[in-house]
Amino acid sequence: MMSVLELSERCSGVLQADLMESLWDKGLEARMVSAGGSRYVVVDGPIELADLRPFGVRSVRTTSHPFPLVSRDAGIASSPVMVGDVEVGGGDFVVMAGPCSVESREQIVRTAMAVKSAGASILRGGAFKPRSNPYSFQGLGGIGISLLEEASRAAGIPVVTEVMDPQDVEVVSRWAHMLQIGTRNMQNFPLLKEVGRSHRPVLLKRGMMATVDEWLQAAEYVVSSGNPNVVLCERGIRGFDRAVRNVLDLSAVPLVKGLSGLPVVVDPSHGTGRRDLVIPMSMAAAAAGADGLIVEVHPSPEEALCDGEQSLDFNGFRVLMDSLSALLEAVKLSQRQGDLKRCSAVM
Amino acid sequence: MMSVLELSERCSGVLQADLMESLWDKGLEARMVSAGGSRYVVVDGPIELADLRPFGVRSVRTTSHPFPLVSRDAGIASSPVMVGDVEVGGGDFVVMAGPCSVESREQIVRTAMAVKSAGASILRGGAFKPRSNPYSFQGLGGIGISLLEEASRAAGIPVVTEVMDPQDVEVVSRWAHMLQIGTRNMQNFPLLKEVGRSHRPVLLKRGMMATVDEWLQAAEYVVSSGNPNVVLCERGIRGFDRAVRNVLDLSAVPLVKGLSGLPVVVDPSHGTGRRDLVIPMSMAAAAAGADGLIVEVHPSPEEALCDGEQSLDFNGFRVLMDSLSALLEAVKLSQRQGDLKRCSAVM
Amino acid sequence: MMSVLELSERCSGVLQADLMESLWDKGLEARMVSAGGSRYVVVDGPIELADLRPFGVRSVRTTSHPFPLVSRDAGIASSPVMVGDVEVGGGDFVVMAGPCSVESREQIVRTAMAVKSAGASILRGGAFKPRSNPYSFQGLGGIGISLLEEASRAAGIPVVTEVMDPQDVEVVSRWAHMLQIGTRNMQNFPLLKEVGRSHRPVLLKRGMMATVDEWLQAAEYVVSSGNPNVVLCERGIRGFDRAVRNVLDLSAVPLVKGLSGLPVVVDPSHGTGRRDLVIPMSMAAAAAGADGLIVEVHPSPEEALCDGEQSLDFNGFRVLMDSLSALLEAVKLSQRQGDLKRCSAVM
Amino acid sequence: MMSVLELSERCSGVLQADLMESLWDKGLEARMVSAGGSRYVVVDGPIELADLRPFGVRSVRTTSHPFPLVSRDAGIASSPVMVGDVEVGGGDFVVMAGPCSVESREQIVRTAMAVKSAGASILRGGAFKPRSNPYSFQGLGGIGISLLEEASRAAGIPVVTEVMDPQDVEVVSRWAHMLQIGTRNMQNFPLLKEVGRSHRPVLLKRGMMATVDEWLQAAEYVVSSGNPNVVLCERGIRGFDRAVRNVLDLSAVPLVKGLSGLPVVVDPSHGTGRRDLVIPMSMAAAAAGADGLIVEVHPSPEEALCDGEQSLDFNGFRVLMDSLSALLEAVKLSQRQGDLKRCSAVM
Repeated sequence: MMSVLELSERCSGVLQADLMESLWDKGLEARMVSAGGSRYVVVDGPIELADLRPFGVRSVRTTSHPFPLVSRDAGIASSPVMVGDVEVGGGDFVVMAGPCSVESREQIVRTAMAVKSAGASILRGGAFKPRSNPYSFQGLGGIGISLLEEASRAAGIPVVTEVMDPQDVEVVSRWAHMLQIGTRNMQNFPLLKEVGRSHRPVLLKRGMMATVDEWLQAAEYVVSSGNPNVVLCERGIRGFDRAVRNVLDLSAVPLVKGLSGLPVVVDPSHGTGRRDLVIPMSMAAAAAGADGLIVEVHPSPEEALCDGEQSLDFNGFRVLMDSLSALLEAVKLSQRQGDLKRCSAVM
Repeated sequence: MMSVLELSERCSGVLQADLMESLWDKGLEARMVSAGGSRYVVVDGPIELADLRPFGVRSVRTTSHPFPLVSRDAGIASSPVMVGDVEVGGGDFVVMAGPCSVESREQIVRTAMAVKSAGASILRGGAFKPRSNPYSFQGLGGIGISLLEEASRAAGIPVVTEVMDPQDVEVVSRWAHMLQIGTRNMQNFPLLKEVGRSHRPVLLKRGMMATVDEWLQAAEYVVSSGNPNVVLCERGIRGFDRAVRNVLDLSAVPLVKGLSGLPVVVDPSHGTGRRDLVIPMSMAAAAAGADGLIVEVHPSPEEALCDGEQSLDFNGFRVLMDSLSALLEAVKLSQRQGDLKRCSAVM
Repeated sequence: MMSVLELSERCSGVLQADLMESLWDKGLEARMVSAGGSRYVVVDGPIELADLRPFGVRSVRTTSHPFPLVSRDAGIASSPVMVGDVEVGGGDFVVMAGPCSVESREQIVRTAMAVKSAGASILRGGAFKPRSNPYSFQGLGGIGISLLEEASRAAGIPVVTEVMDPQDVEVVSRWAHMLQIGTRNMQNFPLLKEVGRSHRPVLLKRGMMATVDEWLQAAEYVVSSGNPNVVLCERGIRGFDRAVRNVLDLSAVPLVKGLSGLPVVVDPSHGTGRRDLVIPMSMAAAAAGADGLIVEVHPSPEEALCDGEQSLDFNGFRVLMDSLSALLEAVKLSQRQGDLKRCSAVM
Repeated sequence: MMSVLELSERCSGVLQADLMESLWDKGLEARMVSAGGSRYVVVDGPIELADLRPFGVRSVRTTSHPFPLVSRDAGIASSPVMVGDVEVGGGDFVVMAGPCSVESREQIVRTAMAVKSAGASILRGGAFKPRSNPYSFQGLGGIGISLLEEASRAAGIPVVTEVMDPQDVEVVSRWAHMLQIGTRNMQNFPLLKEVGRSHRPVLLKRGMMATVDEWLQAAEYVVSSGNPNVVLCERGIRGFDRAVRNVLDLSAVPLVKGLSGLPVVVDPSHGTGRRDLVIPMSMAAAAAGADGLIVEVHPSPEEALCDGEQSLDFNGFRVLMDSLSALLEAVKLSQRQGDLKRCSAVM
């Protein structure tokens, strides 16, 4: 059992110190967290609000989950998350699209314009690439970041890009509208804490062999470091069948939505590794209740420096966006009809 | 490379023997198969139609897959499959529903009526239950079969039920409209051959740790034994996260549809093991292109003799069916719009 | 909590019926089992011996495991198991060796002589082969069985062979000294029950996706059907790394030995799928406490009809046997020294 | 195909520049690497020594593996690796032992003395702990490092400790004799590059979801950044059976030894998560050919701040060391006897 104490404005300076001391005196582990302009104390154990009112505690919420700040019952991190002026998790289905890696000005600007015009609202693109092999193309680094910025401005949409090194967070935060934590870094705790100190929203990809519980605890690292703006991304887990690159675990979408208020998007490109599966799995993700997608799109996938076999070309991306629109109407409709009944029926 | 030779009526008796001898003389492995009223020869290697015409061979199709008879390019097993008078894989989305196991006349008849009235078109129910533990309830056996038959007649819908022992196939085939091969028996080859000799359609569940390739080879066992009427069922693969019973691998749906013409249905009940995930994953299955569902429904799940935690009650099932209908309209619409474009766009 | 009641000779006929009725009257599930010449009753729940003495119950043992008859605390199935005149699990390390499948008289007889002379004490060889593909070589069937018998007599060692179809159990039992249940059939319950009615010992391979708990419950099926002579075989579980065919899970050896008294052997051939890993993993298996090995050996692996890439030739097998002998001496020595201390030290 | 060019002393300054230009002119990707006092060029493709002699290239070795510098055929990183004055991979079996985390001066000093006196030659202990949960004990940090140093000096053995943040590498390198990269950081590429710039040897744990190929490519990151002193550590991969924490994949030991010259040690504590499995799996690791172990030992495991259930106490550790010694004699003996024969026999 963990408790989240929300502090009122009244609780400042001396009172905060008194509160913490009083909690520690009771033998409770307690930690102060500052997030989204408010102050909270996370306590490991149940506690009575009545005892805490004198210190300026406004409310106490409890949860049985080891990730109190992102939990649905006690959490403070929740939808929507703003990326530039785009709302993620606010009801509209948001598509992030772009190449695996930024390769040239022409490539990224053309892609930005194309995905924007087809309906994408956020541009993706890698400047720092985590590659299994040290001799593989590692991304354009700083140059890539500035090309992304240019493309973002040209198309008028915000940009999400991966950051791998805690030391890069500050610089990348200046330009990128959203910071992506890749699957290999989901439990890179110094990096999670560093993006937790940033003012930019974070796209937290699920580790390729992480449980949903571990994933939400990773999100808790970010939020408890001060940044409540986390969007989760299911991108496939490692499996035994060589026919696909990963097993896209769509059940994680409703599972996470039951446990947490955070938005969840799906990456059908890495999630399958095959272009021919991207559209059906995108449709499935939308039907499962995801808040959006992140999709790889490249002007000529067969020439891409990485992940070409899972990238859509511009035409393929337009087909995806067309296919999605009718479906999304239907999903919204059936959700409106079903939500009330479903609660009583199947929980 | 494997070839499927279709024989004309002209090719009988002596000519067949000559054909086989001629193939063997060339050092080719060849095997005659009788399915759906026609005769075929499966040859391991490429071969010219011209050389075979004299023997009464009508056509030759080749494939690089190790499951020629169920492959999309050379196959003879394809959609739709008739279950009683219900078409599976014929364009309409088919829902099979019912309890994990038949427990009593009242339970199965009431469930049959309820799922029928909510829109299900096939009744499911287990009489022979494969249980991990020898002391768990093993099903009602023959009595269960006859109760199923009664319920099926009362509701006016056909019934699918599992068969585990090759010796039971003949008896169960008399009453059940469709024979289910469970996940633990996907590579029980004597059983596959036995249902291959039956005239009833077969619901072949994917092994919980089987690749898609192994699954289609298992289907090939059934078809090459004489029965072309196979419906595949994705029911989740084993994973590492204890939050769910299995990982429902929806990417298997479009993957199989690219490789084979067989219909594919999805089992969201075993595929997740959790009632609260059944509806979202059913929606996702439909959006991914599945031909139908098989869902566990029980009058009072909390009293079920098995799998209660993953069963819907009657009300939950109605909510599922309502949620599906708007979605299915949209999927059909977007498929009509998208099919042509998609082929050129994403393959 | 489950209880195993051992019945004395005094408890016959009428008393047995009274006992069962008395248990059922108390609302307990109870089932009579006949194994190894004695009668037992398995009861689902705890029970007092005092109440049962009048019925001729000699002892009551309880366990928290769902596999009472094979559990270490309450079980009746235990080491050693006799295969012909060879003791498995009796202290000596037993090596079973031979080809994946019987291909010809010469092949199997030569192999039998070679493995015997190098120190193997049981001949393995497949007559009925479970193959993923229906067009792959399926074994020589009945002919293979009779060739195995001939080779067994020639070399003077007993033989173990796989049985896949419940209908074959009786015939195969006539000739083979031990019946193997393959990994794909670990949860083929009709087959488990059928070999449970046989008088031959059973080699029960672990399912490639089975937990240790499920594996021991599968053994419980065999024993509760009347056959207490089960030897377990770890043969690798399915993993994500394509460098090996399976992941040989040696921790299953000490794990099973802590839970059950059944002997455990290891199959390093299927467990790795690579000839170059067979010797080191055999050594590791012996050091982990296995009671023996089952190894694939072929006169010319590169010409084998199946599994050539994981088979040793005669020379390789002799190297394996030589490498093992020094190791086994050391293991025995360190076990004698360590057993007592270890119990208090690490449990 | 990749080539490793060794440069002679003759090849300096101008010649190096000429060499690189000449390679690039041929359209080859080439990269200069400095490791262990020598200079190398890694070229992506085959190349003739004759053409390169004028530039002062001494030798060219080629490999088909994507990790040339750590490959057995072309590699420069190899056994033994010196940790303080302890040789790892030099023939003697090396045991690293100590607590999961440093908790207090008394705890770490007592443990250091105890494991040293039982035969361990390197002390392990965590100061920076990667914990799934942000509210779990995160280690003593800098204080932990200085306590480790004190314990190391008191016992007279070198120390290995984990580093998680690239920014900590320099400070930790001052005191610790070996830097551990944890399983969650195996693909934290900025961290790998940073320890690659350190002069301390690196213990590279296998990612819990990493293939052997990815693991060796991670080692290539370290070596290609300048540090040839890498010891690999198998610590279990994630599996589906809840009975163990991880699946200890011992086949990785001979597999890696066939591919690379790097030493390999095994972590039976994390590899199983259960104290009762540590000794048998340690024995198995030694028999499989590992160069050593890393084992968790704690004065009172039941009071440990982390991983108590998998830690041995001092007595248990002594039993382990006793059990190992007889075994290691035997392994050495059988290796001496078998090595020559085995090469011709089973490769």
